Amino acid sequence: MYIGVDMGGTKIAAGIVDPQGNILAKDSIPTLRERGYKEVIKDMAELILRLIKTYNFDVKDFEYIGVGIPGSINKKEGILIYANNFDYNNAPIAAELQKYINLPVYLENDANCAALGEYVAGAAIGTKNSVTITLGTGIGGGIVLGGKIYSGFNDAAGELGHTVIASGGEKCTCGREGCWEAYASATALIAQTKKAVLENPDSIINRLVDKDLEKIDAKTAFDAERLGDRTGAQVVEQYIKYLAEGLTNIINIFTPEILAIGGGVSKEGENLLGRVREMVEKNIYFKGEPKTRIVQAKMGNDAGIVGAAMIGREVAS
Amino acid sequence: MYIGVDMGGTKIAAGIVDPQGNILAKDSIPTLRERGYKEVIKDMAELILRLIKTYNFDVKDFEYIGVGIPGSINKKEGILIYANNFDYNNAPIAAELQKYINLPVYLENDANCAALGEYVAGAAIGTKNSVTITLGTGIGGGIVLGGKIYSGFNDAAGELGHTVIASGGEKCTCGREGCWEAYASATALIAQTKKAVLENPDSIINRLVDKDLEKIDAKTAFDAERLGDRTGAQVVEQYIKYLAEGLTNIINIFTPEILAIGGGVSKEGENLLGRVREMVEKNIYFKGEPKTRIVQAKMGNDAGIVGAAMIGREVAS
Repeated sequence: MYIGVDMGGTKIAAGIVDPQGNILAKDSIPTLRERGYKEVIKDMAELILRLIKTYNFDVKDFEYIGVGIPGSINKKEGILIYANNFDYNNAPIAAELQKYINLPVYLENDANCAALGEYVAGAAIGTKNSVTITLGTGIGGGIVLGGKIYSGFNDAAGELGHTVIASGGEKCTCGREGCWEAYASATALIAQTKKAVLENPDSIINRLVDKDLEKIDAKTAFDAERLGDRTGAQVVEQYIKYLAEGLTNIINIFTPEILAIGGGVSKEGENLLGRVREMVEKNIYFKGEPKTRIVQAKMGNDAGIVGAAMIGREVAS
Repeated sequence: MYIGVDMGGTKIAAGIVDPQGNILAKDSIPTLRERGYKEVIKDMAELILRLIKTYNFDVKDFEYIGVGIPGSINKKEGILIYANNFDYNNAPIAAELQKYINLPVYLENDANCAALGEYVAGAAIGTKNSVTITLGTGIGGGIVLGGKIYSGFNDAAGELGHTVIASGGEKCTCGREGCWEAYASATALIAQTKKAVLENPDSIINRLVDKDLEKIDAKTAFDAERLGDRTGAQVVEQYIKYLAEGLTNIINIFTPEILAIGGGVSKEGENLLGRVREMVEKNIYFKGEPKTRIVQAKMGNDAGIVGAAMIGREVAS
């Protein structure tokens, strides 16, 4: 049995996971990240211990704890080197958690965990290789090859959102100009929607959000398009083009068996994916069969817990 | 002992390679590709048999023949599905070669062979993972992970040149707009140099090529820059920016231990690589240590022969 923890900027979710990737029990608490990592990890330990006790397990029933974190990890040392959302540079997360629970602790980037979760129990089960993309605040990317997370020789690989698709274009949070994330994340889609409404004040979107642009989310342009709004349709069409550009790149690089799309934007389902597939199909390099299948990620937020719960398996073996 | 063949558009080179990746003997013939694949493969077989005889080996001394081809391969069936340079769609290359020589025949994409060659005996020896880029007519890419070529679930992965860095930009031979290859191949550099000379007829370049723009090659802009020519310097600077854009993407995706650069343009050596490294360093996502090392590929054209000679090892094992 394994414990998987998804340590997000606003919420920490933990789960008890069996070897097949089923979540037997889960719970969550607010992160309250401003307190510093020691307080946060103390709460995380309490969450885990409470979960174990509530469901009548014992610490000894578990082989290890896996923790997914949105940042750069030194896996060997169990250190969080850097994370956009946390002000915890070089924080010894694993050692801190072990102060409270006597189990091995493994860390992994959260997008990598999500990809492993989809491989173990979601959209990429049984595949030889898969890539999972999460369209959220940024674009998370995880690469699973031969059942294992691919993370390069320094644990820092898989930053698929930080590949430039428009050289010299939009400024990205990472400092580069033109990253895919700056065009195809949920944040980017929202910015594109806002900009379009400002340029087209007669758009239905203004009515959908009561003229309060702060109410625009990643669904707004799609909703407007469904209502026949031209501005909404244009935003969606352009967004799909950006999204497909990066997905086509990923396919030309990896030709994975499955390319799974998760995160808020992916909830549009086939309305999004059908159109994305059509554009990708036109542009991919290898036109033969078999082709990469682009599918919706299946596990939602559970992917992070399940993936985190599985990361120790390759380390342990 | 293995036989490696590099089947190019103008030349077929074959070599006898030992298990350490040393070429014991090699020879080459013109491809004369217009004759169709059967004639070409017949010549290839004669080349191989002559090589074996000349150097006092016997067919029985060899485990297999590996052939690198610039195209899409069905490895399992030994079929060349499609190649830009050959008009041989779905050609059963392996079966055709076996008509003449009774050895297993394995096919692989030539850029993948070059990457494997650099891993076995060149710039990437002993690495956990490496990527090799060849800057030539196009941009070839090969990914070696854990000592094996990564080629996706359908043998079509690794098309690193066909990743868009400038969405909606220059038309690429693959049909997309804005591929890295259309900006950073030797062909692209030559086109950029020509364009710059037409816009700046007083450039030294015009003298270097006796006002014959067809004499411009991938070295011309660098030569002009060395002579203090402003146009040459501008071309080089812009080219390095394009090259670095794609290399930075590759590092953010793979963080390979070694990123080796081969092909004609790479002969500029440190004058090119030093400046590329500086730009990449500024833009990569993970600023910690250790970092990917960008180095010059070491094996030149031999990489293709050695890599082809090694491709059967993973298949055979």
